[in-house]
Amino acid sequence: MNRPDRLIAEVGTAELMGQIGRAAREAARKIALVAPEQKNEALLAAARAIRNSSPAILAANAKDVEAARARGTTNAFIDRLTLNESRVAAIARSLEEIAGLNDPVGSVIARWQRPNGLIIERVRVPLGVIGIIYESRPNVTADAGALCLKSGNAAILRGGSESQHSSHAIHACLVEGLKEAGLPEAAIQLVPTTDREAVGQMLKGLDGAIDVIVPRGGKSLVARVQEEARVPVFAHLEGICHTYVDKDADLDMARQIVLNAKLRRTGICGATETLLVDRGAPAHYLSVLVKALLDGGCAVRGDEATQQVDPRVTPATEEDWATEYLDAIISVKLVDGVNEAIEHIARYGSQHTDAIVTNSTETAEEFLRRVDSAIVLHNASTQFADGGEFGFGAEIGIATGKMHARGPVGVEQLTSFKYVVRGTGQVRPA
Amino acid sequence: MNRPDRLIAEVGTAELMGQIGRAAREAARKIALVAPEQKNEALLAAARAIRNSSPAILAANAKDVEAARARGTTNAFIDRLTLNESRVAAIARSLEEIAGLNDPVGSVIARWQRPNGLIIERVRVPLGVIGIIYESRPNVTADAGALCLKSGNAAILRGGSESQHSSHAIHACLVEGLKEAGLPEAAIQLVPTTDREAVGQMLKGLDGAIDVIVPRGGKSLVARVQEEARVPVFAHLEGICHTYVDKDADLDMARQIVLNAKLRRTGICGATETLLVDRGAPAHYLSVLVKALLDGGCAVRGDEATQQVDPRVTPATEEDWATEYLDAIISVKLVDGVNEAIEHIARYGSQHTDAIVTNSTETAEEFLRRVDSAIVLHNASTQFADGGEFGFGAEIGIATGKMHARGPVGVEQLTSFKYVVRGTGQVRPA
Repeated sequence: MNRPDRLIAEVGTAELMGQIGRAAREAARKIALVAPEQKNEALLAAARAIRNSSPAILAANAKDVEAARARGTTNAFIDRLTLNESRVAAIARSLEEIAGLNDPVGSVIARWQRPNGLIIERVRVPLGVIGIIYESRPNVTADAGALCLKSGNAAILRGGSESQHSSHAIHACLVEGLKEAGLPEAAIQLVPTTDREAVGQMLKGLDGAIDVIVPRGGKSLVARVQEEARVPVFAHLEGICHTYVDKDADLDMARQIVLNAKLRRTGICGATETLLVDRGAPAHYLSVLVKALLDGGCAVRGDEATQQVDPRVTPATEEDWATEYLDAIISVKLVDGVNEAIEHIARYGSQHTDAIVTNSTETAEEFLRRVDSAIVLHNASTQFADGGEFGFGAEIGIATGKMHARGPVGVEQLTSFKYVVRGTGQVRPA
Repeated sequence: MNRPDRLIAEVGTAELMGQIGRAAREAARKIALVAPEQKNEALLAAARAIRNSSPAILAANAKDVEAARARGTTNAFIDRLTLNESRVAAIARSLEEIAGLNDPVGSVIARWQRPNGLIIERVRVPLGVIGIIYESRPNVTADAGALCLKSGNAAILRGGSESQHSSHAIHACLVEGLKEAGLPEAAIQLVPTTDREAVGQMLKGLDGAIDVIVPRGGKSLVARVQEEARVPVFAHLEGICHTYVDKDADLDMARQIVLNAKLRRTGICGATETLLVDRGAPAHYLSVLVKALLDGGCAVRGDEATQQVDPRVTPATEEDWATEYLDAIISVKLVDGVNEAIEHIARYGSQHTDAIVTNSTETAEEFLRRVDSAIVLHNASTQFADGGEFGFGAEIGIATGKMHARGPVGVEQLTSFKYVVRGTGQVRPA
């Protein structure tokens, strides 16, 4: 038995996880206060370690891939899991990019003076300990660990059993970086067991040791986390994103945006799943858009009107409006203007990302104001729903909740704040 | 039986609370989008109704006070419960002040342009539905309801059975204001039953209808809410606040700050409970501060050194360092400089509010940076821990958690945000 397995056999998963939680809390207290340079040193050293360990990481990854093949998993799954030289280099580069971001900790968000002379500042501080529960993508180990460190938080990473060898090899490089920079190794811990009980323990918060959980993976993982977690969760269950083409849209712009929003990548959460077209638009709008999608290799499931424009369109059922395809499939519906579009999105959407295409500023503003989603766009593709595209440098995930974090969650949203008040002897009047 | 009691008898508390939740969610959708003027109209009309209904409110309050007296509750409790002409006028004035605050909804927190021309705005939006669970203070009905409305949120108020008549009379005025302004009455609902089961239902979130819970009351209420709630909670369990007097403090300033921090009002959460004095300070510092407290009518429980300076000092036990007295009692300890002060606060504090008195900028900055509390002050009284004193106009409570809200929770922190992205046809490159 290896060390963690021996520990589990001796003391059980609960004790192992408790130790991890306490170590993380202790590490969090330390890294909350270290200088930006020291954290960056750790990230850059980790990037070097990743590059130097590329053969070892690829060998570990080969084991995971082999096991996955033996289990007969899907090609999409194998693709997410597989690393190669260039993917390993991208992981190292990503660590360097995170090192290059502005350090959020200690930055002054707001500053004002009171009539009594007190100067009040709102200053960013780390959240504490962040638990990340993820599935097959090995790069999450590096990205999530690095984003937590950059924002002064300790990370407890729990990767999927499918990617365990890859994750351990990458995690070893992160630990090397922490050691080189003189930071506590427990700042980024990888749960050393694939026992599912460990996830349950994390969702309960490890006796107050975990401040927030970020799940990264498919809908069933996120659903379990949202259902069972007794600590805050930054997540989106799904991205049922809409693009609404208004009667005042430029047809050519609409066509380009719709094709990009649906087909640039079909497997990301910001991909459009439903196209809504204004009944008041010129008749050929619907047909041009639908044919462009069909010709682009997209299956179209439409309402009555949409079925009329092309024989390749199949009927949409009630279920289609509530489905995140994550595939080259789109549902299409004719609606009575921006109001019905907004109502449709309120009913079937997932408060993730929704877009309007129109040249009417008035209609656009109505849509932007009333659609209750994390991201609303005017004349742009829903595929911009991404921390990198927002300029955050990197994201740990996208959240659709309204508590604390919303939309792409970058290093700033992995922080809290405190009030720093500077006086000259002020006392509060009776 | 009155209407709610009949409803409970017929369908049970769960169904009643479910109806309240659904009505709140529906109202929240509407008031999230109304203009600031309409919300202010409702608040001003409610203030007028409070003034006009003063006799009815006082009569209702008299019933509550009488019942409390009959139960033999403490004088402090009776004082918190009792209204008079001037307290009713203060409630009305408070509504007017909240109407006068800047409307947070729709305000642009940040705005930037991406190299591809996209303009991204971070815009405040309401959180949704806020549940407030409170005890004896009848004014919470008006303040909490008004702060929720101002920030575009629906409120579900659950007052204590002790103040039920007062709360109903005040709530009726709020509803009158909503009606006059043409806003949905369900925007501010008062749970019409004192069945404790209703609280349990609220803590479970009413099937997703409640977004956040704010408890207002004693430690046992807050502890129950924090323990049982399955939705986010904005709260502080207790305020074990510290004032640390450094060797480089001005003694006169320190004396004034310590007296104010402890004795201005002893029953508020920002009152100092422990005085820490630097062992390196001139010997008379400790004695001057302790005697000033004793002479000011404060009981002092001290460590060995503190017991030496005055016979009136009684010994502090380990429990004292972890006690929120909320009374004219203070614990006093000599510490080895700012480091031991910070360690003591980390061990015994409640991450609420802590202050340092020193003329050394370096020592002050060390304290402000390392003390992990919602509010840290330099050369000022801990009693400034208050939304009004921060310039927020009013607060719904003070939070010590790090998620979303922290410190005094005013209208801004009762909002979330969304990203509004304006483009000119941008699509995301492959």
